Amino acid sequence: VDLLSRREFLVGAGGFAAGLAVAGAGNLLTPATLAAEAVPAWPWPYAKLDPEAARKAGYYGYYDANCSYGAAKSLLGELSKVVGHPFNTIPPDLFRFGGGGGASWGTLCGALIGASGVVSLVTKDINKVLDEMYGWYCSEPFPSAKMDGFAKFKNQPTSVCDSPLCHVSVGEWCRVSGKRVGDAERKDRCAKLTGDVCAKTVELLNALTEGKLIAAFKPDEASASCLGCHVGAKSTLENTIGKTGCVSCHPNSHKK
Amino acid sequence: VDLLSRREFLVGAGGFAAGLAVAGAGNLLTPATLAAEAVPAWPWPYAKLDPEAARKAGYYGYYDANCSYGAAKSLLGELSKVVGHPFNTIPPDLFRFGGGGGASWGTLCGALIGASGVVSLVTKDINKVLDEMYGWYCSEPFPSAKMDGFAKFKNQPTSVCDSPLCHVSVGEWCRVSGKRVGDAERKDRCAKLTGDVCAKTVELLNALTEGKLIAAFKPDEASASCLGCHVGAKSTLENTIGKTGCVSCHPNSHKK
Repeated sequence: VDLLSRREFLVGAGGFAAGLAVAGAGNLLTPATLAAEAVPAWPWPYAKLDPEAARKAGYYGYYDANCSYGAAKSLLGELSKVVGHPFNTIPPDLFRFGGGGGASWGTLCGALIGASGVVSLVTKDINKVLDEMYGWYCSEPFPSAKMDGFAKFKNQPTSVCDSPLCHVSVGEWCRVSGKRVGDAERKDRCAKLTGDVCAKTVELLNALTEGKLIAAFKPDEASASCLGCHVGAKSTLENTIGKTGCVSCHPNSHKK
Repeated sequence: VDLLSRREFLVGAGGFAAGLAVAGAGNLLTPATLAAEAVPAWPWPYAKLDPEAARKAGYYGYYDANCSYGAAKSLLGELSKVVGHPFNTIPPDLFRFGGGGGASWGTLCGALIGASGVVSLVTKDINKVLDEMYGWYCSEPFPSAKMDGFAKFKNQPTSVCDSPLCHVSVGEWCRVSGKRVGDAERKDRCAKLTGDVCAKTVELLNALTEGKLIAAFKPDEASASCLGCHVGAKSTLENTIGKTGCVSCHPNSHKK
């Protein structure tokens, strides 16, 4: 026969059939329909990971296909090791577009894009986790020295960018370091940043799993005064979307 | 027995076994490992879609869980209808984070995030497709009137934002329309924009499939003069990443 009938499959698979969301009776199960039926309901089951393993995998993942792919590969890979199915069915290639802040357009940092996708998959508290992650990103000196034991470059200069944008993050690091975007040192800085973002993601998801995630994010002081008029249902004008880092693009707003 | 052995499965599945990337001999096949083994190599096989079906699905998808999820649901859904497996194994929930430009941080437009993920899955020419998509986004008046037959609001004001950022796109539409971010009209504008982005994505991927995609994107005139010094291996400074829309954040650079 070319197809396994549902009955034949269920007889063969025994107890494992309980783990499948099976379709209506009488359908034929091919490997492809079986795979589709095996997709569990969202959110998928997170299990606590090792932040340092994710950091190292993020660093090396960057060199495979840039920041966004690297972050997704790290986190999906660690979840595949610890949980296995269904995380091993998601190709990190879905996040290739994020490199250089979205096809090198310099928008949302690609490491954040790849990591945010995996966060989206495992929790309904997406914005609670990402507010902490993006807020941390805006105030953290990158890259950390935690990969210096195996990275290509050690003791690199660090910069704080006050923005989740690749354009600002990379631009500020180039200003501080004197390096060009195409330099090997800049690439290693972004590989390390990818590792740092992966480790932070794991720390936040582990804390969320333990019920210990604290919503501590606050906009920087200068931005806070912008948001009261411009962002949120309670604001006077409510005429745009954003959370912090206003003055990096609007340094002179409302100044006389 | 609790497990189907490889031999039992191959006997049962017959010709379908050829479609699977099978692991080493002697492994046991559970439904979960079977699903993982059924993940094909990247890029996944695109088939030409109907732009208008994607547009409609994008519009309605927005109302399920915002722009980024809506765009991914539309495109993965249309591919699931036309191609089926493996597109029906990817939960669009992966892109929930993109709503409001990434957890409402206002960065890359969420409709672009969701659509870019699907583009990443089906072609190696990611940046070629996305340069056209993002360039079009920067110069297109949104929303189109193509959903007015079934949308909540008709004949809405349109705006051009010269930026791929949600913050600018939404902010500019609020300025032109006089509406607030929380208004039903603004949400319908972004639902339509999601539909427009999905239709454009299909048009670009269809053209790519036919060998007819023309790389026509050029930065706007004001930005072009910035890029010569700041972006790309041939630039004088090569000190940041980005492609166009410079003056929306840097209106006074180098002016005396």
